[in-house]
Amino acid sequence: MRNLRLTIAYDGTGYSGWQFQPNGMSIQQALESAWQTITGEQLRITASGRTDAGVHARGQVCSLRTASEIDCESLVRAINANVPRDIVVEQISEAPEGFHAIRDAVNKCYEYRIVAGRLRDVMDSRTAWHVGELLDISAMQDAARCLVGKHDFASFQATGSNRLSSVREIRRLAVSDVTRNSRQYITIGISADGFLYNMVRIIAGSLVQVGRGTRNSQWLEESLGALDRMTSGPTAPALGLCLVSVCYPEMCVCGAGECPAGKGLCEVGEPEPTEDPIQ
Amino acid sequence: MRNLRLTIAYDGTGYSGWQFQPNGMSIQQALESAWQTITGEQLRITASGRTDAGVHARGQVCSLRTASEIDCESLVRAINANVPRDIVVEQISEAPEGFHAIRDAVNKCYEYRIVAGRLRDVMDSRTAWHVGELLDISAMQDAARCLVGKHDFASFQATGSNRLSSVREIRRLAVSDVTRNSRQYITIGISADGFLYNMVRIIAGSLVQVGRGTRNSQWLEESLGALDRMTSGPTAPALGLCLVSVCYPEMCVCGAGECPAGKGLCEVGEPEPTEDPIQ
Repeated sequence: MRNLRLTIAYDGTGYSGWQFQPNGMSIQQALESAWQTITGEQLRITASGRTDAGVHARGQVCSLRTASEIDCESLVRAINANVPRDIVVEQISEAPEGFHAIRDAVNKCYEYRIVAGRLRDVMDSRTAWHVGELLDISAMQDAARCLVGKHDFASFQATGSNRLSSVREIRRLAVSDVTRNSRQYITIGISADGFLYNMVRIIAGSLVQVGRGTRNSQWLEESLGALDRMTSGPTAPALGLCLVSVCYPEMCVCGAGECPAGKGLCEVGEPEPTEDPIQ
Repeated sequence: MRNLRLTIAYDGTGYSGWQFQPNGMSIQQALESAWQTITGEQLRITASGRTDAGVHARGQVCSLRTASEIDCESLVRAINANVPRDIVVEQISEAPEGFHAIRDAVNKCYEYRIVAGRLRDVMDSRTAWHVGELLDISAMQDAARCLVGKHDFASFQATGSNRLSSVREIRRLAVSDVTRNSRQYITIGISADGFLYNMVRIIAGSLVQVGRGTRNSQWLEESLGALDRMTSGPTAPALGLCLVSVCYPEMCVCGAGECPAGKGLCEVGEPEPTEDPIQ
């Protein structure tokens, strides 16, 4: 048996999310069915995180165990010829025997994109949240600062989540904007050891409240301390979210200085497993 | 009666093109129906050019004559609330009495986008043509040079076109690329006084033949001289094409030095009317 690592990108617009669902097509289903067409094998493909319906990915990482002897390059070509055009396998490589896409992940980067201003951007309507007014970017940047570091993010997870712990370490949280055609294109880049259910979307929704002036910059710090979902902002829509990269001890792909994989620090601290990292 | 100028952007993926069609939704239909909802008026909206099914626009310009007294800002808001999310009115302004979006256009800019390389880009799958191999960009740039200027572009129009003249002046033709994630993102920017049916797509399709090495850089010059559609390359798919801007004597929006509107030179030479500028 070989153990393979797959890097996948997808436009999640038309999908019910990563995971198999009785109603609606999932990314997992599209990939597993392509795999079966090619190899005859009916197997399970495991992703680093189960992205929600409508969420996109540029660097989702998956693992699978196969008896197939087809080389990696040919598998990339064959899968890409057998999945819909809004999914693409970027890379397949042989992984160490014990490699597991969920358990071994040490760092993940997500991006949340917003188009702010009176006019929507038709070319970004599938990949960015349109907020109808310009936002105060420096207030958002101020507010974001308190979230960086190791904290209990209980206020920033969907109610009803049953994780053992809601402590996570945000290693980078960057809010930036570019103005073009009287619109503000805002990107919230966030990197952490793992994420709670809806964590990025709740942070994005809260930062937009600050950017609108509905809340002040101190509010997020108070909410963080309150450990109560009712104190933070609304969950931003799925369409603005994209899983950018996932890093593993032996392989840093994000290139950020904060990533333990990039620093070769993965052996020092065992990362908390992110069993149910739905975004 | 007021004469209005509208600037429109759309993702053309889901549409049968600009013009009303018995089967399939057109951009024109969506706009005219929104107009009727708002004002009660059933009128005709004229666009600078009838983009084909699947073609996009960032700066399509339209004109209409209305008896409505609603101010321009309110009209923008109301139309945007009444058209699908893949259409947006960017601007509405009062136009001079005689303004006509087709007849008065003096310069148009189109962009054709290509993603080249083994892997498609899922985020660009609606707005760029995926060509499965890297292209020789400098060969494409060399080949493009001969098209700039005033020429008879009979070889670069769809067969069966019945324009009075196939002479047009290409003022700028820029082929550029950026490499990212082992993909080549190529943009063909083209600016002219008017375009023949499928002209940009045939030029793009021909340049890709050169980029692939199927044809050499001199081929386009020979084809241009031949005045025969059979000598040029295939028509590139609609999805890569976008109408970027349209300029009028009193208003240059492209900002390019070659634009007669920008140079204030519109009175000097009368532009040829582009009666049927379908792209």
